[in-house]
Amino acid sequence: MILEVAQFAITPGQEAEFEAGASKAAELFARAKGCQGMEVRRSLETPGRYLLLAKWETLENHTVDFRESEDFPKWRALVAHCFAGPPSVEHTEYAAGT
Amino acid sequence: MILEVAQFAITPGQEAEFEAGASKAAELFARAKGCQGMEVRRSLETPGRYLLLAKWETLENHTVDFRESEDFPKWRALVAHCFAGPPSVEHTEYAAGT
Repeated sequence: MILEVAQFAITPGQEAEFEAGASKAAELFARAKGCQGMEVRRSLETPGRYLLLAKWETLENHTVDFRESEDFPKWRALVAHCFAGPPSVEHTEYAAGT
Repeated sequence: MILEVAQFAITPGQEAEFEAGASKAAELFARAKGCQGMEVRRSLETPGRYLLLAKWETLENHTVDFRESEDFPKWRALVAHCFAGPPSVEHTEYAAGT
């Protein structure tokens, strides 16, 4: 399993709009090929900072199948107008843990 | 549930040492009060970059109970000598998702 970790800074005042967009977008991830779950989490320490954690069966399920799908522009349309800057996106694999 | 997200840069050549230390440390998290799981994940894009994701019932289970426990210095002793710089640590709560 590949965990996508995206980090967002949201324009002050746009937090509720971003969260509503992310909630609507959950169904896009739920039907995406190879997506095993998506969650958006709010930083307790930094106002306007969020992380998206999405589980993908393979890297290509995100970078090819999702990004080239018709749902990718829908996802961006729901949230991108709230971004204060470009998000960072990376992918991770298991290294240690329970 | 509070998700702790820690981000580490590991000194080049120390990656295997860090991963071995993190594997040994899993039992410290497993027995920590309120800890519901811990995983260390390796970035696919950035060599030497890792994220730790730990689930805590409450914020204080991490910031007070774990950090003030006898297991906290044991955790640091297993991994901190591999750090290329100070880790960033933050806490997050659910905002949206499946």
